[in-house]
Amino acid sequence: MIKGYTLPRTPRGKSSLVPNPPWHFVGNVLAVEYKVDEDIAASFLPEGLELASNQCTAYFIEWQYASESGEEYLDPVFSQYRETIILLSASYNGSPVAYCPFIWVDQDKALMRGLIQGWPKQIGETWITRPYELSSKAAPVLGKGGKFGASLSANGRRLVEARVTLEEKADSLPSPTFANAVLLRYFPELVNSKHNKPAVHELVQLKSRDVEISPIWKGQASLNIFDHPYTELPDLSPTSVLAGYRFSVAVTVDDLLYLRNLK
Amino acid sequence: MIKGYTLPRTPRGKSSLVPNPPWHFVGNVLAVEYKVDEDIAASFLPEGLELASNQCTAYFIEWQYASESGEEYLDPVFSQYRETIILLSASYNGSPVAYCPFIWVDQDKALMRGLIQGWPKQIGETWITRPYELSSKAAPVLGKGGKFGASLSANGRRLVEARVTLEEKADSLPSPTFANAVLLRYFPELVNSKHNKPAVHELVQLKSRDVEISPIWKGQASLNIFDHPYTELPDLSPTSVLAGYRFSVAVTVDDLLYLRNLK
Amino acid sequence: MIKGYTLPRTPRGKSSLVPNPPWHFVGNVLAVEYKVDEDIAASFLPEGLELASNQCTAYFIEWQYASESGEEYLDPVFSQYRETIILLSASYNGSPVAYCPFIWVDQDKALMRGLIQGWPKQIGETWITRPYELSSKAAPVLGKGGKFGASLSANGRRLVEARVTLEEKADSLPSPTFANAVLLRYFPELVNSKHNKPAVHELVQLKSRDVEISPIWKGQASLNIFDHPYTELPDLSPTSVLAGYRFSVAVTVDDLLYLRNLK
Amino acid sequence: MIKGYTLPRTPRGKSSLVPNPPWHFVGNVLAVEYKVDEDIAASFLPEGLELASNQCTAYFIEWQYASESGEEYLDPVFSQYRETIILLSASYNGSPVAYCPFIWVDQDKALMRGLIQGWPKQIGETWITRPYELSSKAAPVLGKGGKFGASLSANGRRLVEARVTLEEKADSLPSPTFANAVLLRYFPELVNSKHNKPAVHELVQLKSRDVEISPIWKGQASLNIFDHPYTELPDLSPTSVLAGYRFSVAVTVDDLLYLRNLK
Repeated sequence: MIKGYTLPRTPRGKSSLVPNPPWHFVGNVLAVEYKVDEDIAASFLPEGLELASNQCTAYFIEWQYASESGEEYLDPVFSQYRETIILLSASYNGSPVAYCPFIWVDQDKALMRGLIQGWPKQIGETWITRPYELSSKAAPVLGKGGKFGASLSANGRRLVEARVTLEEKADSLPSPTFANAVLLRYFPELVNSKHNKPAVHELVQLKSRDVEISPIWKGQASLNIFDHPYTELPDLSPTSVLAGYRFSVAVTVDDLLYLRNLK
Repeated sequence: MIKGYTLPRTPRGKSSLVPNPPWHFVGNVLAVEYKVDEDIAASFLPEGLELASNQCTAYFIEWQYASESGEEYLDPVFSQYRETIILLSASYNGSPVAYCPFIWVDQDKALMRGLIQGWPKQIGETWITRPYELSSKAAPVLGKGGKFGASLSANGRRLVEARVTLEEKADSLPSPTFANAVLLRYFPELVNSKHNKPAVHELVQLKSRDVEISPIWKGQASLNIFDHPYTELPDLSPTSVLAGYRFSVAVTVDDLLYLRNLK
Repeated sequence: MIKGYTLPRTPRGKSSLVPNPPWHFVGNVLAVEYKVDEDIAASFLPEGLELASNQCTAYFIEWQYASESGEEYLDPVFSQYRETIILLSASYNGSPVAYCPFIWVDQDKALMRGLIQGWPKQIGETWITRPYELSSKAAPVLGKGGKFGASLSANGRRLVEARVTLEEKADSLPSPTFANAVLLRYFPELVNSKHNKPAVHELVQLKSRDVEISPIWKGQASLNIFDHPYTELPDLSPTSVLAGYRFSVAVTVDDLLYLRNLK
Repeated sequence: MIKGYTLPRTPRGKSSLVPNPPWHFVGNVLAVEYKVDEDIAASFLPEGLELASNQCTAYFIEWQYASESGEEYLDPVFSQYRETIILLSASYNGSPVAYCPFIWVDQDKALMRGLIQGWPKQIGETWITRPYELSSKAAPVLGKGGKFGASLSANGRRLVEARVTLEEKADSLPSPTFANAVLLRYFPELVNSKHNKPAVHELVQLKSRDVEISPIWKGQASLNIFDHPYTELPDLSPTSVLAGYRFSVAVTVDDLLYLRNLK
């Protein structure tokens, strides 16, 4: 009798790429709010969502992860990963929600956890400036005047780069925010007659608990999305940039809200 | 209306991590046949399969891939990847088939194509000796006396290493072979009450067409599977090693045979 | 007229892998003090140094770097790197100094800066647990009871792993410490008759300025150095482990002390 | 008494990043001849060389390496690497030679061997289309009509991409060719007063033996060199592209010709 929350399923169930939830996360976040072309943004939404506004947020996050009993953070090659998330402003049944058209991580475990939640994850490399607790020409202050950068590359091409200069503390997170995002769970069929009839195609909404947010710093920002021969990410390039943010977040995930079957 | 064979699904459908089948593959293969503990091998099989023998094969493959119209091999960062596959000897309804308990690739696109077929793919780095068409102390001959090596690492730990010395041409492929392997398609639920009730849990059988095999070289081999703190791969360590193989294979995939729902 | 502090030297001098000093660094450090076999430790020292004790320190550091005018930390793919350093306790002319037999970094720029200072750098991947400013099951507290891990891998093999549990603040850095380390600058000849007559072979001592150290946490530790088929690192495996440390350091480098020509 | 051809120097001399020559290499090469701005090309040459013509060649090579007794190709993580080389057409004392302004490899051992020979090596990722011995939509024929691609990325940015369509066999290698290239050995000082007075600064010429070249295929080509914020590589962008080549080469290196001290 083999077992495990994901493949590989094995006799003792220790080999599963991702163990049973709950999953605990803590991360440092750099984020940039920006505007895109409204018609284009709308065209990226799945059935069941409507565009709420043409405001997007790009998140760059340096995560550390642990399962309920795993203490993976003590063997950090299994725990640390970095992520870039693009979020659109949508509404579901009249309520504002975020929707994610693109996301990149640098680790297989994070990719698998993402697919299960409906995040359309691919492998990419994210880099984010770190503040340190010492004064140095090699690091920004985590405070007024501190300058931070971030970049995303995939397959050896730079896709996105951002800069943020912190100015003041803020009361609210960037918008759209990833809490309660609505995502698309999608798992295709390969049987010849069913290439367009997926086994799983459903709209879901993220659930999380034990959320903690650090003080939030806000400031000026820039964001560049580079041309690319194969992906549609550049269609969501900024028409204007609103603001940048820097904060930390802790969150636990062990549930998901089923919204609608799209099959 | 967003589209695409996999996530990310987008307006023009160009951004899907994996495009619609057919998928074309060509690869150079180093393989080692070996024996394992019979009870342990049996314990790795899913419901619906029985152990046919305690013979396994480890495959190390350097692939190049293209979609039907993509010519991805001209931008080879999107096309080339390396893979290590472990196969067990099983039977389904009395017919001999292979079953894969573990597999590693080094690319997100290959990982996604694998999940769709039921391969339990994780990210790992495979290295395989290459023959060259020139005589050199830096390369083996592809022929009698040629010595080849291969290794698999994941998360910075070496998991497997193999050596093969070619002795003679052979008439048959190593056994078990990956053609017609029976695999487990498995996609979990995250809704809290359903962590053990997957959305997809089915036994499937690979289908392929336009298969070509090069001349097959066979010889002596060694295989080491290293201890590891978290995975059960070492439970399938060799009790004896039978033979090594080197050949090339070309194959096209655009179909899958549904066998049985395990939900 | 081409220019640049290192190769590649080019017309505008902008392409040099490493720019002119000064170089500014800030890093988070996990360290473990341990004992090794005394005769073996002595055998690793170059001419001009004597063994001071059989005490070693292994350092695992997450660095951020900037040149004098470069602000590289805003494009952090060029600025961030991780390093593992092994230090022996030596004496030079009767004064205690550290000597480095082995060091690994994950970036070419850091490797080149190292060679210039006499660090025997190779490419390897270091992972170090991070504390976060929020409470989470995915991160330790940076304080009493906080548990940290680190690992080093090179070429897909794990070489070193460490664990530290913080217990109390300490007044002093681990010993030996990397400030004022004595190193070997060595640049070989390839001309056939001179393979054993290097162009550069000299004993040098690190110089640094603007050093800042954070509060230092100390506690219990473990350290494993794994067997390896090709390197002598395992000869310096711990016979006992003394203590673990966690602190941050900022430092600027633009000078070096020449000690002795060993040609 | 520590020993070794390069750092790290250790008691048994087994740990040296690079062992004593001779070094044996075999590689598959894709190359593109092209023209650049003549004045710019001239400005990249070091003292002692003059521009011979504005013709350059970009080489993309998939290498396998072994030391004299090492059989590294049997543990190919230590043996295989990929390289991109840019060569200019220069003359030294009236004789035509190649000069290398830029080169990228993906392995520390190759980087170190390069620095010793005067190659200005940095870390970068090269990808090159492979032919296979089987017919497949995933691979080109190694012959008339076969289409090959290559790319170079460093630090997550694409720097160069090439395409070659083979048309006919050719009698001669691309020009300039890397045999007998003249290079700059350069090892800086860090002592404060000597930042511009390197320890080693000399013009040298490559020597090789046991050179073998496969049949050479030639055809049409394209080459793009992309903009980059920090490097001068784009100054050497093609003004026109002449031809593409595909061949294999085997070579042994254990010597170097000293030409001139530039200190």
